Amino acid sequence: MKSDASAILLISCSDRKGLVCAVTDFLMRHNGNIIDLEQHTDTEEGTFFMRVEWEMAAFALPRDQISEKFSLLADRFDMKYELHFSDYTPRMAIFVSKFSHCIHDLLARWNAGEWQVDIPLIISNHPDLEPLAKMHGIDFHCIAVAKDNKAEQEAKQMELLKEYSIDVMVLARYMQILSDRFCEEYPNRIINIHHSFLPAFVGAKPYHSAYQRGVKIVGATSHYVTANLDEGPIIDQEVMRVSHKDSVESLIRKGRDLEKMVLARAVWAHLQNKVLVYKNRTIVFN
Amino acid sequence: MKSDASAILLISCSDRKGLVCAVTDFLMRHNGNIIDLEQHTDTEEGTFFMRVEWEMAAFALPRDQISEKFSLLADRFDMKYELHFSDYTPRMAIFVSKFSHCIHDLLARWNAGEWQVDIPLIISNHPDLEPLAKMHGIDFHCIAVAKDNKAEQEAKQMELLKEYSIDVMVLARYMQILSDRFCEEYPNRIINIHHSFLPAFVGAKPYHSAYQRGVKIVGATSHYVTANLDEGPIIDQEVMRVSHKDSVESLIRKGRDLEKMVLARAVWAHLQNKVLVYKNRTIVFN
Amino acid sequence: MKSDASAILLISCSDRKGLVCAVTDFLMRHNGNIIDLEQHTDTEEGTFFMRVEWEMAAFALPRDQISEKFSLLADRFDMKYELHFSDYTPRMAIFVSKFSHCIHDLLARWNAGEWQVDIPLIISNHPDLEPLAKMHGIDFHCIAVAKDNKAEQEAKQMELLKEYSIDVMVLARYMQILSDRFCEEYPNRIINIHHSFLPAFVGAKPYHSAYQRGVKIVGATSHYVTANLDEGPIIDQEVMRVSHKDSVESLIRKGRDLEKMVLARAVWAHLQNKVLVYKNRTIVFN
Amino acid sequence: MKSDASAILLISCSDRKGLVCAVTDFLMRHNGNIIDLEQHTDTEEGTFFMRVEWEMAAFALPRDQISEKFSLLADRFDMKYELHFSDYTPRMAIFVSKFSHCIHDLLARWNAGEWQVDIPLIISNHPDLEPLAKMHGIDFHCIAVAKDNKAEQEAKQMELLKEYSIDVMVLARYMQILSDRFCEEYPNRIINIHHSFLPAFVGAKPYHSAYQRGVKIVGATSHYVTANLDEGPIIDQEVMRVSHKDSVESLIRKGRDLEKMVLARAVWAHLQNKVLVYKNRTIVFN
Repeated sequence: MKSDASAILLISCSDRKGLVCAVTDFLMRHNGNIIDLEQHTDTEEGTFFMRVEWEMAAFALPRDQISEKFSLLADRFDMKYELHFSDYTPRMAIFVSKFSHCIHDLLARWNAGEWQVDIPLIISNHPDLEPLAKMHGIDFHCIAVAKDNKAEQEAKQMELLKEYSIDVMVLARYMQILSDRFCEEYPNRIINIHHSFLPAFVGAKPYHSAYQRGVKIVGATSHYVTANLDEGPIIDQEVMRVSHKDSVESLIRKGRDLEKMVLARAVWAHLQNKVLVYKNRTIVFN
Repeated sequence: MKSDASAILLISCSDRKGLVCAVTDFLMRHNGNIIDLEQHTDTEEGTFFMRVEWEMAAFALPRDQISEKFSLLADRFDMKYELHFSDYTPRMAIFVSKFSHCIHDLLARWNAGEWQVDIPLIISNHPDLEPLAKMHGIDFHCIAVAKDNKAEQEAKQMELLKEYSIDVMVLARYMQILSDRFCEEYPNRIINIHHSFLPAFVGAKPYHSAYQRGVKIVGATSHYVTANLDEGPIIDQEVMRVSHKDSVESLIRKGRDLEKMVLARAVWAHLQNKVLVYKNRTIVFN
Repeated sequence: MKSDASAILLISCSDRKGLVCAVTDFLMRHNGNIIDLEQHTDTEEGTFFMRVEWEMAAFALPRDQISEKFSLLADRFDMKYELHFSDYTPRMAIFVSKFSHCIHDLLARWNAGEWQVDIPLIISNHPDLEPLAKMHGIDFHCIAVAKDNKAEQEAKQMELLKEYSIDVMVLARYMQILSDRFCEEYPNRIINIHHSFLPAFVGAKPYHSAYQRGVKIVGATSHYVTANLDEGPIIDQEVMRVSHKDSVESLIRKGRDLEKMVLARAVWAHLQNKVLVYKNRTIVFN
Repeated sequence: MKSDASAILLISCSDRKGLVCAVTDFLMRHNGNIIDLEQHTDTEEGTFFMRVEWEMAAFALPRDQISEKFSLLADRFDMKYELHFSDYTPRMAIFVSKFSHCIHDLLARWNAGEWQVDIPLIISNHPDLEPLAKMHGIDFHCIAVAKDNKAEQEAKQMELLKEYSIDVMVLARYMQILSDRFCEEYPNRIINIHHSFLPAFVGAKPYHSAYQRGVKIVGATSHYVTANLDEGPIIDQEVMRVSHKDSVESLIRKGRDLEKMVLARAVWAHLQNKVLVYKNRTIVFN
């Protein structure tokens, strides 16, 4: 355990008086120094959200007792919560097809130590990017998915995810639709990049549709994958001004920059344990 | 005629060799000094677009003969074209309901001399903004439109538009849907502001829909009105980053700034004769 | 007192353990329901900042006793704090010269009820905008400031500010430099709009400088006025892409939209009691 | 020669009547089909700029005669011009120190075939990124520059640039200042990325300065290198909203994304022969 580690609680529950006070009092009583606290109340839904991060160094509770103690408080307020530690290094798998811009960007960040993450596994339905995986010393598994072998191939993928103890999956322009079963197995743990400003232009070929509609701005959207295609909770979006001068090809070219930037920001927020999902929307703490 | 007036040609036709040369040669032969030339070729459609502006001061053709002479050239290349003069002051009518932010902004620009335009007429389905019209010395006509009197009331509106010699109409958050007949009567002459990033969230209450979907960016879209609601050619769009902290109310509040800015930019482009419409898309020259 | 009023505490002090807990416990003990809490720790400076807003409806302390009771806590932690109530309507004076775009925008917002503020006073060094003031029923005082009468004229201005019980001043493109004495009299209560992306292009004619330098983006900056010209704490900034096609004139024209938008956002944040100033920087709570 | 190659002329001269016509007529006479034409007149300077691109397929002049023929026309109007061909693949050298994000991004684009460019040479003052160069099969030369060996080491660099027939150099966060002599040797051929929104925060540690000043937006600037540090002609800029929550570290982290994006856009514009430099400003054609 690193001495500068911190713990993070992500909490949601029905709004009522005394919630912030109860949580901060709990931390105070165990000598927890709060580094960061952010709360949000959705007044329409009457729901309370909170992210609080505190130093573990002088904290009176050992890690394995925090959840047990906190659950007493959580039960009282009917809170849902997640507990994370800043010194845990999550394990990420990247799913990819042939487009390389997103995976290049993810690996460059990883390579430069920008993110605290392990990337032991790349899964693809094409062999094309195996050399890139090799270059970075990452295991590459080519699992070609077709109409008639989807269930079988997904079973192999899930096997690998288990074997490599994967925490989070990133679909870096993976051109396959995951089955409902697959999606439901990993709620809020699969991050996708869609190459449009959702909910505009769902489905395939969004740049073609954007061109046809004559929009003056195009975008990209990163979201958690759910069984409803392109309808999962949005984590981040970014846009870029375009004009009549942009052909479909130039939209695709420019859009790649949006895609990799938005995907990276979403992955960063997820890795920092800053994202809470509620009713198909996200709370992304700052 | 002001001595520093310029003339503007907006041209579109099938792409072929020699178009730019033919037009610039025509101007050259009549001693026209080109101030600005912009051309665009849509290679997918095989269509050529051009906007050229030249000084009238030393131009050898009088205004009323330009069209006649140019039409010979235009016929040869099967060009469609519009001819405008920079010293003509267009006449604008504003349609409004109760929301005042867009009309306030339009009138402030007009008042400050930012635009070369006359605004002799405001039409509303509510009496609320009559005092504002009075303040600016603009005629205000309250024409309440209901289900059963739409045709009749639109006839009155069209009568007024004729009477006031209106060139362009701006729907500054006018909460009525114009009939197909009305729209078709004024192609590319009615500018609307829609309070979403089209094509996302067509129809009423887009901020509510944006909130429900949990988007991280909201927008506004200015477009020419056609018979297909919210589907006319887009002139300009603008967006703004939002977060889970934004309630529907704050989206509406922030969105007003987008709406008035985008509407003003679209009106500006139109008044400068910088917009060409083609297949439900716009070419907006710089 | 409106039953849905809330109270707001803005707090800053040296960082130490237990600060959030102490404040929320204070509110809890007096039955205060927290609507919004945001804290920030500047780890480099070791300084803690907090904004907390709670419902007054069921709060056990009457308004005039809150400060007295809270000061005991504040003393213990050596906190600086401000206490505000959401149902207080601040009184604003606008200083203006000849440019009308910012004041038009401010008054349109006020007129539309977008802001909870009273605007009883406009002060100008030119008579030009008196009709606009009249139109809105606001007292207009023309106080021409010249080199040799500055002290005297500022004395008159300060007299008016006192007479009208002004809380906050907005310099809406007021083309005079306030004396050091004036600035120091109203710390963090005078909001200025500077027409550049500070700290680039301080001083007069920033658009000319931007043009000369050939920048591809221009901006506007809203800040509190201090004795150091254009160096006060920045509240908000906004930018806009430009190109070689933009002349100084078009930069000025486009810039006006930035200026009015940024100024309005800064005023909004101030009126919401969301701004804390610390070491010439601002904390702008969300 | 590829059959779909095009030729590009970049022209600048004093503004006068008939320039567009003269050029398009020249192309027309030799059966040149114009794909794209953009002109710009700087009315303050009285200078004319033009970029015209035409198809080579049916063009009547062989490549090696175009310049000879065109120079007759150019002489008549005292034009400066550059002639480029779209099927020429420029040769780029990357200068780098230890930061890897920009070079990673450049190489990923090159690797994915996004750009038509050869990258045969990487020069660094540190050995750290040699493995990356190896991975991509690019020659890597470590030339450590110190105060007392600068002239000598720069001579080696220039030797390499000659040896590898380098057309354009990209300083991808190269932490050395090039000598005046070096800069002047390659006018408008060295592209640098500066990690601030110039002209704000010139020199070292701009993110620290931005933090100290409390700006709400940070930026990055790509420019051609001249003998005046950070004062060369700006090619592109990009910005990003930040807040009091951003430490110097998070500014640095977020800024990396700006830097790599802006640098890539500037390199792209340069490679497309879309940049003209005039009086320390750039015309960047669309």
